[in-house]
Formats: sequence, C-alpha cells, structure tokens
Amino acid sequence: MAGSEAYALGLDFGTESVRALLAGTRTGRIAAEAVTAYPHGVITERLPGGKTVLPPDWALQHPQDYLDCMARATKQALRASRLKPQRVCGIGVSFTACTMLPTMADGTPLCLMGQFAKRPNAWIKLWKHHAAQPQADKMNDLARKTRQPWLKRYGGIISSEWFFPKALQALDEDPQVYHAADVFIEAGEWLVWQLTGRLTRSTCHGGYKQCWHPRRGYPQPAFLHKLHRHFGNFVADKLTGQRLAPGTCAGHLTPAMAGKLGLPAGLAVSASIIDAHSGVPGAGVALPDVMVMVMGTSTCHMLMSRSEKSVPGISGVVPDGILPGYFGYEAGQVAVGDIFAWYVDQAAPAYVGQEARKRRQSVHDYLSSQAAALEPGQTGLLALDWWNGNRTPFVDANLSGLIVGLTLATRPHHIYRALLESTAFGTMWIIELFDKAGLPTKSLVACGGIAQKNPLLVQIYADVTGRNIAVAQAANASSLGAAVLGALAAGAKAGGHSSAPAAVRAMCQKPTQVYRPNKKHHAVYQGLYRNYKRLGNHFGRYADPIMDQLRKLAR
Amino acid sequence: MAGSEAYALGLDFGTESVRALLAGTRTGRIAAEAVTAYPHGVITERLPGGKTVLPPDWALQHPQDYLDCMARATKQALRASRLKPQRVCGIGVSFTACTMLPTMADGTPLCLMGQFAKRPNAWIKLWKHHAAQPQADKMNDLARKTRQPWLKRYGGIISSEWFFPKALQALDEDPQVYHAADVFIEAGEWLVWQLTGRLTRSTCHGGYKQCWHPRRGYPQPAFLHKLHRHFGNFVADKLTGQRLAPGTCAGHLTPAMAGKLGLPAGLAVSASIIDAHSGVPGAGVALPDVMVMVMGTSTCHMLMSRSEKSVPGISGVVPDGILPGYFGYEAGQVAVGDIFAWYVDQAAPAYVGQEARKRRQSVHDYLSSQAAALEPGQTGLLALDWWNGNRTPFVDANLSGLIVGLTLATRPHHIYRALLESTAFGTMWIIELFDKAGLPTKSLVACGGIAQKNPLLVQIYADVTGRNIAVAQAANASSLGAAVLGALAAGAKAGGHSSAPAAVRAMCQKPTQVYRPNKKHHAVYQGLYRNYKRLGNHFGRYADPIMDQLRKLAR
Repeated sequence: MAGSEAYALGLDFGTESVRALLAGTRTGRIAAEAVTAYPHGVITERLPGGKTVLPPDWALQHPQDYLDCMARATKQALRASRLKPQRVCGIGVSFTACTMLPTMADGTPLCLMGQFAKRPNAWIKLWKHHAAQPQADKMNDLARKTRQPWLKRYGGIISSEWFFPKALQALDEDPQVYHAADVFIEAGEWLVWQLTGRLTRSTCHGGYKQCWHPRRGYPQPAFLHKLHRHFGNFVADKLTGQRLAPGTCAGHLTPAMAGKLGLPAGLAVSASIIDAHSGVPGAGVALPDVMVMVMGTSTCHMLMSRSEKSVPGISGVVPDGILPGYFGYEAGQVAVGDIFAWYVDQAAPAYVGQEARKRRQSVHDYLSSQAAALEPGQTGLLALDWWNGNRTPFVDANLSGLIVGLTLATRPHHIYRALLESTAFGTMWIIELFDKAGLPTKSLVACGGIAQKNPLLVQIYADVTGRNIAVAQAANASSLGAAVLGALAAGAKAGGHSSAPAAVRAMCQKPTQVYRPNKKHHAVYQGLYRNYKRLGNHFGRYADPIMDQLRKLAR
Repeated sequence: MAGSEAYALGLDFGTESVRALLAGTRTGRIAAEAVTAYPHGVITERLPGGKTVLPPDWALQHPQDYLDCMARATKQALRASRLKPQRVCGIGVSFTACTMLPTMADGTPLCLMGQFAKRPNAWIKLWKHHAAQPQADKMNDLARKTRQPWLKRYGGIISSEWFFPKALQALDEDPQVYHAADVFIEAGEWLVWQLTGRLTRSTCHGGYKQCWHPRRGYPQPAFLHKLHRHFGNFVADKLTGQRLAPGTCAGHLTPAMAGKLGLPAGLAVSASIIDAHSGVPGAGVALPDVMVMVMGTSTCHMLMSRSEKSVPGISGVVPDGILPGYFGYEAGQVAVGDIFAWYVDQAAPAYVGQEARKRRQSVHDYLSSQAAALEPGQTGLLALDWWNGNRTPFVDANLSGLIVGLTLATRPHHIYRALLESTAFGTMWIIELFDKAGLPTKSLVACGGIAQKNPLLVQIYADVTGRNIAVAQAANASSLGAAVLGALAAGAKAGGHSSAPAAVRAMCQKPTQVYRPNKKHHAVYQGLYRNYKRLGNHFGRYADPIMDQLRKLAR
C-alpha cells in the first residue's frame, strides 16, 4: 500500500531555515525531511554586500536564501526518501508572517536590483522587524478615531509587525522605493508566485496580516489617504492578485522551478499559509471548536468555528483563514518558551547547572523534575508572563514581566514552576475570552517542541484550564500541515485529497497522549488564576501605568 | 599621650559570636579586638546534650557560650593589646535583642538546671526565634481591640520576636517552667547581672523590646491577665530590677568574673544596649536629628531627637533608648544585605560567576561594577524589597518581594541594580515618614560592612534620598559603641568620660567619606520612588491582598 501511495511536499519557511517534508497522502508516512539554514539568516546589522548600517529594530531577509535553500532542502529530502520524483503529487507552502517585500510586476524583488540594493526599505521585512511602530501607532490612532469597522476583527489594535505599517514605512522613509514597486506582497505569497509563475495571494496572509476580509475587503482608500497622501491607492495599485484559501490550487510548478527542485513540472501548488496556522491540520485537527496551541518560543492559539465573533486582543478572525469552510481565529502569547530559556540563561544559578550535569539532564529537565515535586501554590509565587509584552488580551508591547511572592526561601525550581504556571494562566485567559465571546473551546490540542518535551508543562496547563489536553504526535506540525495543503491542492484524482477532513484523517495521526486535569490542583489554580487576572487587569489596563513608564524610562 | 590613656572594653554579643574590643578613651585607638564563636551557635534542631527535637521556627542559645566566649575573647584581646589590665577603666555590653531567658532569683538560667534541661522553653530564646507568633498575634489583637496606649510607640504592632510574646509562649506551652522562673530577662541584661552580681535592666532593651516606658511603665496587669489568667502579675513578679540607660554604671565587676576575664575587680560596667543601637555612638554620632543606618543583612534606622512623636511602623521610640537625654527612634528594613546575598546565591547565572572569577572579583563586586555603568531607570525594573516581609511602615511579615519590568533583555546586573535601588527606596520611605511626623533627618550616616564595601550602594542611597551620606569609619561600630558606653560608665575621674558627646568626640572618628547626590539622578529617582510607593501602598495596604494569600497558600 504505502509503496504505491502518492506523496505531498510540505515546504515550511521558518525564521532561520526552510524545512522540506515528504508525507504519504494515504498513510501520512514521513518519507524524508531536510532542513537548510538561510546563509544570511536574520539581517539586523548591515545590508548584505554593502556597508549600509541598519537602524535599531530592523530585521530583514534575503529572497535568494529562500529560493536556494528551498531547492537544496527539497533535493536532499527527495534523495533521502529514495522516492521517484513522479511520486510527488503536490506542494504546500507555509511561511512566517507578516514577512513582506516590494517587487516589480514580474516578481523581481527590488532589493535584487542594483539601484535599490542599498536601500533598507527595498529588502524583505521579516515578521519580527519592529521599526514600523510609528506607522502602526498612526494607523491605530486614526482607525480608532474614525471607528474603522475592520479594527475589531483584530481585537481593537493592529501590530507594527503587520503588512500596512511595513508598507507605509517604505512610503514614509523611502518614497522612491515605494513608488518603484509594482507589488507589495507577503513572502509566502511571493514564493508561491515563484513556484507557479502566477501572482496569487492567500486568504490566510490577507486575513491575519493585511486587514483583508473576503466580503468587506481592505481598509478604504480614504482612510489610507489620511495616513499619507500617496497611500490612498495602495490597495488598488500594489495589492492586486486573486486571494485563495490554503489548500486551494494556486497554480502549477513551472518547468524552470521544477528543474531547480528536481520535481516534475506541472505539480499543483497550494496557496500559502502562515506557519503557525498550518500547525492546525498538522496537529490532526480539521474540525471546529478545538483550540490548537502551537507552542514554541511563543504560543499561537488557533480555533476554527462556524460563527464570526469579536474577541478582544485576538490577532485576527478570518473566513477560510486556516482551512476552507471555517472562520479561523488566532490569539497568542508573545513569549512562552522564550521566558523559560531566559530563566535558564539569565537567572538559574550555577548550582542548578551542576546538579543537572550530575544527573545528565538538561537544566530545563532538571528544573522541571524539581518543580514537579511541588504542589500548586507551594512556590508562594505568581508571575505575569509578559516578558515580551502582551498580545491577548491587551495587545501592548510595553507591558512587561512581573514576579510577586519572592522571599529569602525562594529557590530556582519555585521560580521555574511559577513561570510555567504563568503561561498556563495566560492561556486560560484566552480560553475564557473566547468562551465569553460565544466561542466555547471543546478540547485542546498542544503541538510544538516544548509540549512534547515537557510533561510537567502540559500537566500544569490541564490543571489550570481544567480541561483535557492532547499532545499532537507530529514532530513538525507546521511542515506536515503544509504537506496536507499540498495534497489538497493536488486533489483526489492526482493522488491527493478533495476535502480537508479526509486529508487530515489520512495524513495526520490523532493525538494519543492526553493529559487530564487533577481536580484538587484545578481548585487551587482557580484561586491563583483569579489573582493572576486581577494583577493582569491592574497593570494591563494601566490602573498602575508603571510597566509603560519603566519601558519608556529604560529607552 | 596614647601610652598613658585608659582603655574601655566593648563586649559585643552577636548571633554567632562575641567580639571584645579595647579602645583608648582619649584617642579612640583600637588596641586590640578578638572574636570567639559560640560552640553551640544557633540551636534550631535539638536541645544540647539531649535528644529533644525542636519544632519549626525555634532558635535558641546556650548561656554558657556567652560566659565562656566572653572570657576567651577578652583575654585574647588583652594579650594582643599588650596593655596591663589596670589600664582598662570600664566595660560596655551590647547584645542582640530580644534574646531572653528565664532564671532563678540568683541568676541561674533554668536551662542549666537538671530538671529543666530538656524543656525548650527553659532555654534562651534568640532574637530570631519565631515560634511565639500565636502569642504575638493574640497580644496585638487584644491591644488593638482595647486600644492600648503603648501600641502606637511601636508603630501599631509588636513583633513575635519581642519579650512579652516569648514569655507568654513559656506560660502557654510549659507552665511549670514559667512558674519556676523568678525572673525573665534579656540576655544583655543577664550578662550585666553576671558581670556585676546585681540585677539591673536597661532602658534600651526595656523600651524597644519589653513595651516599657519610663513614665508610662509596662502594659497593665488587667491587659496581661486577659492574655492568660496567670500572666497578670508577670511584670510585678518576674520583671523586677531598676532600669538604667546605656552608659550608666550598672555595677562593678565581681572578683569572680574579674578572675575569669583577667581584669581587675571593681571595674564599672555599663547597662547593656541593643547591638544595632550601640552602632549610633560607634558611628561617631552623639547628636540628635542624624539618622544612622546600621546596614547588614537587615538595616536598622536610628534617630535621636528631643521630641517624642508617633511614626507608623517604627520599631519603637524610647526615652534614653540610645544615649541619655534623647528620645531614641528605631525603624527598619527586614532584609537588605540578605536580598543581595539571595540574588547571588539563588538567581545569578553561572556566566556571572565565571566573569567575576576571570576578573578576580567577588560576584557582588563584579555585579556592582556592571550595574554602576547603568543610568538610573535604565534597568527598566522596579522591585519591592520585601524578601523577608516589611517592617517600616507596614510591620507585616506576610508581605513579599516583587519585581516588575522583566523582559527578555533583562540581564543580571539590571536585576542586581534594581535590588540595590529597592532598598534605597525603602530607606527613603522611612526618612519621609519621620519627616511627616515632625522628625526631620538633617543628615545620614551609614555604617556596617555593606556600606563600607559597596560604593555604588551608598551612591544610590545618596541619589535616591537626595541627601549627603557619610560612611562611618569604624569597622565594627557596635563594638566601638559598647566601648564608648564602658568609658561613660567609668566616668571622667576613672579615665573615662562624663558626657556622651565628649566620649563620642574623643573615641569615634567622624565619618570622612561622604557621598553627595547627583541632581540629575535624583530627579529620575524621584519619579521611580513615586512608583515604588504606589506599588508599596497597593500591596502593603492589601488593595491587592495577593502577597498575604500567596504566603498562606505556600504554607
């Protein structure tokens, strides 16, 4: 059976590298995967090949990295799989977002043209490029004042990481670049354009990062005009191209690209998806009312639903945003694994490292094992998990982390456990906000490395939320999700699938490992969660504006 | 000149050891000093010589340790000084407090009598014995309900560390011990009794730890009776003995004791003083309106004044409590050096230790040098320095430490500096409370190891308070202060002194090192201090009761 099944290629473009994964469309067997790191990585200091120094908060990437690394990773995976290239039926692309660039009408990135190579705004702005904050502030202010209807789809505020602020930054800072560009496009969409030779866009990128809605469209020209007198026609002029849902065929692999990837020309290519969102099918979820937590340095909370509601502080609600047929909701916590890593690097004393080495454990494992011996509440600590600001519910980058309850008897595993717990309280708040908005979470699925590696963490999430938490099997849910979309783009006749639930059922293992809440622990955590929310509201709503003041003072 | 001057012996009984110091009464020359550690140290697990296990929170000492170590340290200092014993004119005693014990009428400690040796309540309860909390709670509750006038002299609350709760604990738990005791007495007063053969008491111990006032006396029998039906006559029966101010002659060295110490019989012995309080003359201060900060694991703030006022959260205001002729005020921060030590032991990452070793610095010195390069506010952090609860102004052991402003960019020297700053804000609050009560602080003198060792710390205190801070020269201000009291007890005729200002002028160096506030830094710190106070009031006054809840949950 497996010997004759077709395979879908998932191409998952992360911050540092691209992963190519080949998954059987009938059995989900992973035939091979390969990862290739971008030679230029994240560009924060100087532009490539030049001496142009970048200001603070800039984060760029090199388009050639995507093309070269994709080709290398695909060939490597193909070789390792020993599959004939003809066995591959379709390609799915998942990509970080909003990562965006200006191009010419033929797709040539401006930054690859001699006259623009030294102009920072001509380059690809990576998702974590934060230099468009003034533009985001301006856009949010005006949107609030003029009561823009799209604002509430994004929880009342848009991020400096998104598409319009980044494009407006180019216009503000370098009008020549802005005007020379025929197209502004997400890197994921651009990649699909490169593969297919055809400019299309994605409902996922559009809905979550470009303020787009299938019936309501984009922000109006009059609004954009008020932001800048040359920005009014931005959508009409530079945002052309049909929007397609992920899993829809966006076109077919060009002969030139087929040569570079070692694949047959004509393969179906899916419209691109944001990497976190492809974690939903990758985690085996194709049905509504299941919250998928893609846990890593940060956590994205994804929920599909049949109804469209307003939820404060969400990153977006988008029709067909995750899989066709549902409203896709995204909420998030900006720092999760990042906080635990910060703790181990910056605040775990030497003796903890020594004990861990003695036991041949990682510091994380050692601290987790010590922390697991504590009862809920026993640390005497409570933390606000805002080490990198807060996304849901306050959408405020100036909020910061807090620990209360410190005493001379506080030990490292107490703090470590309090940090794990704080991220669980943050997730509970998100579940509650969805619940209050009329979007009940029936069950929870966790995916991502830290969910698979840290049983204590997932147990705490179960105990705090009072809900079962299933951990997805896939080691790389985003890449597998991209492959699922490739199979959908190919369709059943070509060896793929014609419906998302069927594709997910066939290709993704259902989570088998389930953590159940301990009732006694849940009761204690309910009390602590009330305290967490009271603290969070006190500082997050600026009853005490101290976090904002401290940030500003530090700058 | 120095060759012919008289010397005073200061005996300074600390938590772990006694220090004997010989200081010239005319020049202040330190002829010698010697330290001897108590063989039994702090007894927290089992009673000496037996198998009696102690409950949690107990902390006892052995009376023989005091006698043996005092003799050894005195002889050692005398030998090292090469002085003839006849050159010594008087003895001063400073002691931890409230460290107290029950004795027979002849001064024999009950714990040294066979029938009581296995009874924990018969032993010396060290200042940090915390097992009398139920008795303190009961006493505070009743005092508040019945509006006892003495309560406001102690900032509205008395501590479980003090004399009445510790005595009441003996009555509650072991009435036989309580009733067998003829006398309950502070260890400092007992020591003077042993030296002179005469039972006297001290205005300092009485005023700060025994709820005593020279005109208003002790808590009334009716009040004490309500605490326990056998406690009504406690004062009349077991608190006999004249109270004398430190520096007053309490009696003369007995021949037996003279033999043990290697000193002439008949030497004048001063009434005892609490060790922190003897830091005031030891730091060269004999005048009112100068705040002396005795900085160590905790900080005591001492101020002498001509007027008696109520200040919230102070440890006490006592006529003649520090030096004769002034009201002595004591306020405090429970943890200061303790917090910095906690940080280094429990939260400074390994790489900080490695960098410090590379530079051959202590971790404290290394972190201080890194922190010194930061501007005020640059850490982005603010902390409440309540790692061991709060004394002034809230007198609440259930309050705890807090840090706000943590981000992924927070580094160890940021946190270290924020902790130094937090203790400075705590001191500023105390200065302000005194100020508002009509007790202005004209100048500040810091003494104690951390003030001498850490210039950054003292500079931050100057910048936060906006005041000059002088650092006392004496390496051991408490011991030198005890010697000053010995010289006063001896009197001018015997080679000592007849007035405290004269004794201090002659024997103690004026602080020469003065830290002046940087105006720009002070301006920034004023803003941060407002935030500190707002945070402090929010949590300290239970607008958010979270600290109390976390403590209770942790237990």
